Amino acid sequence: MTDQKPPAVQAVAFEDGVLKLIDQRFIPQRLDRCICRTWQQVARAIQNMVVRGAPAIGDAAAYAVFLAARQYRDRDAQSFARLVKDACSALEKARPTAVNLGWAIQRMRTILQTEADPHACTERIRREADAILWEDIRTSRSMSEHGARIVPQGARILTHCNTGSLAVSGPGTALGVIRKAHALGREPFVHVDETRPRLQGSRLTAWELMQAGIPCRIQVDSASAVLMRKGQVDLVLVGADRIAANGDTANKIGTFMLSVLARAYEIPFYVVAPVSTIDGASADGDAIEIEERPPEEVTTIGSVPIAAAGVDVYNPAFDVTPHEHITGIITEQGILHPPFASGIRDLLAEHAGK
Amino acid sequence: MTDQKPPAVQAVAFEDGVLKLIDQRFIPQRLDRCICRTWQQVARAIQNMVVRGAPAIGDAAAYAVFLAARQYRDRDAQSFARLVKDACSALEKARPTAVNLGWAIQRMRTILQTEADPHACTERIRREADAILWEDIRTSRSMSEHGARIVPQGARILTHCNTGSLAVSGPGTALGVIRKAHALGREPFVHVDETRPRLQGSRLTAWELMQAGIPCRIQVDSASAVLMRKGQVDLVLVGADRIAANGDTANKIGTFMLSVLARAYEIPFYVVAPVSTIDGASADGDAIEIEERPPEEVTTIGSVPIAAAGVDVYNPAFDVTPHEHITGIITEQGILHPPFASGIRDLLAEHAGK
Repeated sequence: MTDQKPPAVQAVAFEDGVLKLIDQRFIPQRLDRCICRTWQQVARAIQNMVVRGAPAIGDAAAYAVFLAARQYRDRDAQSFARLVKDACSALEKARPTAVNLGWAIQRMRTILQTEADPHACTERIRREADAILWEDIRTSRSMSEHGARIVPQGARILTHCNTGSLAVSGPGTALGVIRKAHALGREPFVHVDETRPRLQGSRLTAWELMQAGIPCRIQVDSASAVLMRKGQVDLVLVGADRIAANGDTANKIGTFMLSVLARAYEIPFYVVAPVSTIDGASADGDAIEIEERPPEEVTTIGSVPIAAAGVDVYNPAFDVTPHEHITGIITEQGILHPPFASGIRDLLAEHAGK
Repeated sequence: MTDQKPPAVQAVAFEDGVLKLIDQRFIPQRLDRCICRTWQQVARAIQNMVVRGAPAIGDAAAYAVFLAARQYRDRDAQSFARLVKDACSALEKARPTAVNLGWAIQRMRTILQTEADPHACTERIRREADAILWEDIRTSRSMSEHGARIVPQGARILTHCNTGSLAVSGPGTALGVIRKAHALGREPFVHVDETRPRLQGSRLTAWELMQAGIPCRIQVDSASAVLMRKGQVDLVLVGADRIAANGDTANKIGTFMLSVLARAYEIPFYVVAPVSTIDGASADGDAIEIEERPPEEVTTIGSVPIAAAGVDVYNPAFDVTPHEHITGIITEQGILHPPFASGIRDLLAEHAGK
């Protein structure tokens, strides 16, 4: 499994019998690790966004199922199966939009169905969690290589939210492509949207880029429109939380706004995501459930109130970018171009056949 | 002058020989007044955004010139004129984009040129400052009445930044129109952009709307794109800091983004501003200087750091909405429609002839 070294920053790591998550709520003020000994702790960490980014959530959930199995492995086979399945259901509900979560849990359910012995099943679940993590690392590296092909020399790239090693086990999705382009000497410059309300851009992406020595600048989300109009953006690269069968893409709130602007100013707009983010069961964007998160994310920062007391808040965590606004979808299998529906169908058929 | 009662919330008030400004940096946490006894204190208050909103800045600057004149009125005529002119120049530079500031100062310079006696000049400057404030109140009321005509029953209005009684002496520009529509029983609902970086939407506009009993909801700026796409916005109403001769409009950063989206989803987009905001000397948006403000506005909230330490920041305070994106410009003289260039020419000629 460990045929390659893990990446420098690891959002999700299973070490010494516990799951260690970088607590992303406090970066850049503190770099803390959240230690999870039980599956319930992982579920809370996912819910509270200690860990975030669709692939990283999938990895954390996979290890959470292992923690559940380890906890219940001395029970009889029936109780064991029931308790672990209950944990699976609870984990699956921790965040509704990220597809990788459901996908990781589904792989664990398959093992539960085929291996009745609690100890043997627990062992297989552990190996599966490791496999998911290492697949993510390889997938991320592979996406980065495919994606770097479309990054021109000296490209000024606009990105949104965090799609790097904090969101993914490996170099990242959109940020992985940027890292690879940088490593190849393409000298990218990155305009980073701060990404309200949780500021993953200014807190996490800018931090990762500065650590990697990649030149960048942050701006409030609405200022990205000005950069595009002024011709200061050559390329938009974003991640995805769920991609429907027709290519419609759910991603962090603000992505759709960028896609309208990129289209108006004829700027290539690429989504970078593993095949596991594609949800063949969602026909289009309307079928994707969009999580609404607590008003406090918008009305406070830390403990500082930043809005009129008691005001109503609309706080969707994601939005849907229609496939017509997307130039290409960069996956570990290569780059999909419109029409996406047929490309996605072929890719999913191939993926399922593996 | 005081033929009508002043509005309930007064951003700028001259009382007991001092200028009292509502300190807008701390709303909604505290409702403090900043007391200015010297013109230098007013200049700092404008710079630090204690007072903000193009018309309110103009009013504050007018009284600042009076404070300067009062301070220097016992000097000889030549020193008096020189010192007050120096104050005018310094005040004019406090914020570069808002046109009302320069326009108020220009009126004071005209008095300085025509009245040599320091005491008599000081008295005339005081009357002129009162006149500017009361003109603003009447202008604001008049804009509100014209604007309310285009607000349909039950309109769901999207607005950005703060354009109410905190920005303007009177009911406001865009928010004045909303107040008037509410008073006429049109039952408007207001989607308020939080307006990063300084959050004038969630802090000030939401506070004013709630005080006025007008239903509203806040969202992060990028989420307004989703509301427009979903058909939840009937009308966009914004203010302006400077309008060029062709109708191109400088307003709070984020306004341009809204204009692109409104156009894409065929939503009427109106600018509400007094004729004094029109700058006939700027041929188009390219001629408007856009203020860039300190990075700390983006990287901290209160004392809380919210971005990677030392990161580069792009922080333009305003952007320019091209006239092609604007459905109409609502002024105290009526509503201008495209082509704006000819309407603006006529309006300025009429205004200058008064």
